Amino acid sequence: MVKRKAPDIAVGRLPLYLRVLNQLEAEGRTTTNSQEMGNRLGLSSAQIRKDLSYFGGFGRYGAGYDVAYLRDQLRRILNLERIWPVALVGAGHLGHALANYGRFGESGFEIAAVFDTDPAKIGQPLGDLIVQDAARLEEVIREQGIVIAILAVPAQAAQTVAERLVAAGVRAILNYAPVRLQVPEGVKVQEIDPVARLQHMAFYLFRK
Amino acid sequence: MVKRKAPDIAVGRLPLYLRVLNQLEAEGRTTTNSQEMGNRLGLSSAQIRKDLSYFGGFGRYGAGYDVAYLRDQLRRILNLERIWPVALVGAGHLGHALANYGRFGESGFEIAAVFDTDPAKIGQPLGDLIVQDAARLEEVIREQGIVIAILAVPAQAAQTVAERLVAAGVRAILNYAPVRLQVPEGVKVQEIDPVARLQHMAFYLFRK
Repeated sequence: MVKRKAPDIAVGRLPLYLRVLNQLEAEGRTTTNSQEMGNRLGLSSAQIRKDLSYFGGFGRYGAGYDVAYLRDQLRRILNLERIWPVALVGAGHLGHALANYGRFGESGFEIAAVFDTDPAKIGQPLGDLIVQDAARLEEVIREQGIVIAILAVPAQAAQTVAERLVAAGVRAILNYAPVRLQVPEGVKVQEIDPVARLQHMAFYLFRK
Repeated sequence: MVKRKAPDIAVGRLPLYLRVLNQLEAEGRTTTNSQEMGNRLGLSSAQIRKDLSYFGGFGRYGAGYDVAYLRDQLRRILNLERIWPVALVGAGHLGHALANYGRFGESGFEIAAVFDTDPAKIGQPLGDLIVQDAARLEEVIREQGIVIAILAVPAQAAQTVAERLVAAGVRAILNYAPVRLQVPEGVKVQEIDPVARLQHMAFYLFRK
């Protein structure tokens, strides 16, 4: 079987499927199907089958999916069979919220280092970690072999920090700053943009 | 001209276009084109022209777009010619980060009320507001005519709070809790899910 290259938008839905499978397993379920998964996600069953088809055949016709098997396959496909150490840059309120976010560990990620430039924050505990001086960013990232970072810094600092992260070896950045980062080819960036999400929903308000 | 109904995914890109236009204007630019906008967003110029075509003709052939005109049209289409009051539920670290986020005001939104259940937080200042008792959620939302809410509460509380918000008249929820909310038809939900974004990027790590 020749597999077609999966479009990025299909890759982006795999984490949603993984989340539903984890929920189903927590409910004690052992099998499911694309219809049920679609209902839980607000997607069509055809969309789910098509997305999965880029990566292989995961169900028998009419028998649906084995929850544990499909979950394990998605974890493999998404490179989540290991724990990725993540650098968190910015120890403000957002940094605190992220450091205390309970879902990273179970999802394939662990915040392994936290940085800030504020002398009042450096040396303070944050979750299980101690906030480190952002001057040591490159050194720590290289030492720990970190390739994923979360950017929780003010907008005006984001591009400079991103360039330092990339120079130190980071290949994927989750960006909370309201700035479009310029990064070299091959470096992935995902943005968290609450304003864009609110504006998207505003389109539908008070329409017939 | 008969306009086709815009798919939701095209609606979701309009805020990105609006952001680029605001950036261009801040740089003193008065005209642009789909190629330049696409370069800044990592999208094809054809995609941008197609998305915009659902809503009208905004440029003259070969002349590109007038930055201020297109920005104003997008603000009108997205119902952003007013300031929407927003209820923020949850005054923890994430709530603090959101209350201090600088971009809501310029983008069509204003956090108009903040709620928490923690007696230690109720009555305390948060940005320009005072944290209110979540017991008063329905009352305040009705009084202020609020239809948009941001949910920054723990996962186990999210569904219950969402139901109370909807019962009080909220029609759009930005959900930071790692839970798929069940809401009635016609209520919009957008999720902020950092785990899904990290997992999406992990797919590309260490691949050829």
